[in-house]
Amino acid sequence: MTHPTAPTLDDTPTLALARDLLARPSITPDDAGCQQLIGDRLKACGFTLETLAEGGVINLWATRGTGTTLAFAGHTDVVPTGPIEQWQTPPFEPTIDEEGYLRARGAADMKGSVASMVTAVERFVAAHPDHQGRLAFLITSDEEGPAIHGTRMVVDALRERGEQLDYCIVGEPSSVDTLGDMVKNGRRGSLNATLTVIGQQGHVAYPHKARNPIHMALSALDELTRTQWDDGHDGFPPTSFQISNLNSGTGAENVIPGELTARFNFRFSTAFTADELKARVTEVLTRHGLIDGKSFTLDWSLSGNPFVTLPGRLLDAVSHAVEAECQRAPVLSTSGGTSDGRFISTLGTQVIELGPVNATIHQVDERILADDLNILSRVYERILTTLFANQA
Amino acid sequence: MTHPTAPTLDDTPTLALARDLLARPSITPDDAGCQQLIGDRLKACGFTLETLAEGGVINLWATRGTGTTLAFAGHTDVVPTGPIEQWQTPPFEPTIDEEGYLRARGAADMKGSVASMVTAVERFVAAHPDHQGRLAFLITSDEEGPAIHGTRMVVDALRERGEQLDYCIVGEPSSVDTLGDMVKNGRRGSLNATLTVIGQQGHVAYPHKARNPIHMALSALDELTRTQWDDGHDGFPPTSFQISNLNSGTGAENVIPGELTARFNFRFSTAFTADELKARVTEVLTRHGLIDGKSFTLDWSLSGNPFVTLPGRLLDAVSHAVEAECQRAPVLSTSGGTSDGRFISTLGTQVIELGPVNATIHQVDERILADDLNILSRVYERILTTLFANQA
Ligand SMILES: [Zn+2]
Ligand SMILES: [Zn+2]
Repeated sequence: MTHPTAPTLDDTPTLALARDLLARPSITPDDAGCQQLIGDRLKACGFTLETLAEGGVINLWATRGTGTTLAFAGHTDVVPTGPIEQWQTPPFEPTIDEEGYLRARGAADMKGSVASMVTAVERFVAAHPDHQGRLAFLITSDEEGPAIHGTRMVVDALRERGEQLDYCIVGEPSSVDTLGDMVKNGRRGSLNATLTVIGQQGHVAYPHKARNPIHMALSALDELTRTQWDDGHDGFPPTSFQISNLNSGTGAENVIPGELTARFNFRFSTAFTADELKARVTEVLTRHGLIDGKSFTLDWSLSGNPFVTLPGRLLDAVSHAVEAECQRAPVLSTSGGTSDGRFISTLGTQVIELGPVNATIHQVDERILADDLNILSRVYERILTTLFANQA
Repeated sequence: MTHPTAPTLDDTPTLALARDLLARPSITPDDAGCQQLIGDRLKACGFTLETLAEGGVINLWATRGTGTTLAFAGHTDVVPTGPIEQWQTPPFEPTIDEEGYLRARGAADMKGSVASMVTAVERFVAAHPDHQGRLAFLITSDEEGPAIHGTRMVVDALRERGEQLDYCIVGEPSSVDTLGDMVKNGRRGSLNATLTVIGQQGHVAYPHKARNPIHMALSALDELTRTQWDDGHDGFPPTSFQISNLNSGTGAENVIPGELTARFNFRFSTAFTADELKARVTEVLTRHGLIDGKSFTLDWSLSGNPFVTLPGRLLDAVSHAVEAECQRAPVLSTSGGTSDGRFISTLGTQVIELGPVNATIHQVDERILADDLNILSRVYERILTTLFANQA
């Protein structure tokens, strides 16, 4: 095997489009013209476009055809570059190096995938102008930010209209070592809470006149951290509980504080609903002598319910396409953080995530093998062909 | 009983001197001329004066006579006034109200006591110019502040000279409801520590790649807060352990922090040495799986060892004087915060604290019954008479 020669600006349509997107400094939530570019390409192959904008975020919803719907979902925003002087090549000047890596902020997460999706659809539509079903794109510029006015808002709008969305392929970089080695077929739920324990401030010399909220909280928090919530479920890793922030104290060393605040997070499987976890936490606190509304309050925030796409028509098509184009069977996984899949799945959609290698995302010198985008585009195209090609 | 009539500026020498001191805004560590006034009075009745100044703090050491030594100890500095508009009378304009209360910042803590000590000595010396033993005053302007350059420094200087200090009466406001109802015959030790627990930072979605220092610390801290250290000892209340500050977290809700800091305080009886408590804490942390120097560090700071003055010549004289002048037997107690007694006791001195009612100290509208200072002065005088009067 030889190293690829240094590519030119237009070696493949996928790489050319990827570079065009990557050259735009679309730091979240700024789209920087990416969706215009994508929209123009989709319009040229027969898509109907709609832009939903709010709060400085723009979202593109584009469809072609009717019937069973498969949406490609992605984002045009990227995380900030970090210390720009540490980059080997400028983050918004996409460069393919001598070893064949496409280097730029967003190469892996996820303008590369978006380019692959667009060219996959272009080829598929050219080959099957009267394809079955409906093709769709859901592109946002607010995935890396607060994610309020992005996919969440579009999904709410689709739900209100009664739109059916059967299948969704999210372009998040799901691969670990080599393209296609992992497909995410779900994500754990994420539930955040702020616990406030209310004691009575006082002086350390007179502890009987105070109630130390730190002392009040410790045994319950300790039990929560030691609980085995489940042993994994439906392919999910075990539900985990992590305290991220714990704060109490006035700063003075002789004052017993009046209040303690703990922030914690559950990553949970489909073995639980969020309400079940909330009830469990309240039960533990209460059993340790804390009184709801009096000596403690809990402020919950559900970041996303767990979702899982079980084997079926979409997963079959995906596995088949990866095996054919990448010569490997993808591992299914529900590990990792949250993604916009959590919003889309609420429409009853089968959602999977399939994209390039994620080793360098959010880092300095973000990069992927340039040719992986060409392969990824063929994988996406093959999924479309399996699901929506005209019967010969 | 009738209300006392509104006093005039010179109704007793003790009140006149107290007002003179209270009119000086000696917010810690500013002495504002108080020690000059006290020194002049002591010099006039035959004391030899010495001023020890350092770091903006001045201290007065004054002695009269030779032999067995009784020192009166006090401070001229006061805590800040707090919101001045909340005071019924200006804090540095000492006022005796219609109910007989002397109102001013420092009235109870502790310029009132200092005035009573000075006039007690004046009367005693006039009656017994050739008294036995040695009378002394140790007055500082840094008791309410860091207390580094105050009594601690003077005691170090006395120790270096080999000075003997047999008895000491500290004028801290020891009384609870009525003058003389309580005498402090010791204080618990105070030992502070900062515990740092060192984990490994990470993302809440990947807990297996991190070590959460909050989770690591909880069970050991919980055991420490639940430990019964002793049941009280030598009249001391039980040793207590209080966590005053507990902090961990980056502020982000999805990050497992790398470090936790806990600050805690022991108030301990003579059942323990500070070293024994340190060893116990290290043992508990180690037993809960934390490794000294690797997953935790402890930074100790001994604020004061416990001391106690057991019944003997000084306590007998004190109890006798209180009973005679206040018509009640004082309760002996070692409760409460620290005082300069912790430094003085290191000279092998029998130390007691006897002063006015402490209900309003460090508060807005600090006040004591004006006549209590006249009575307190007689109590101090009677102690001197018992210990040092010439044999008839
Ligand atoms: Zn992404
Ligand atoms: Zn004081």
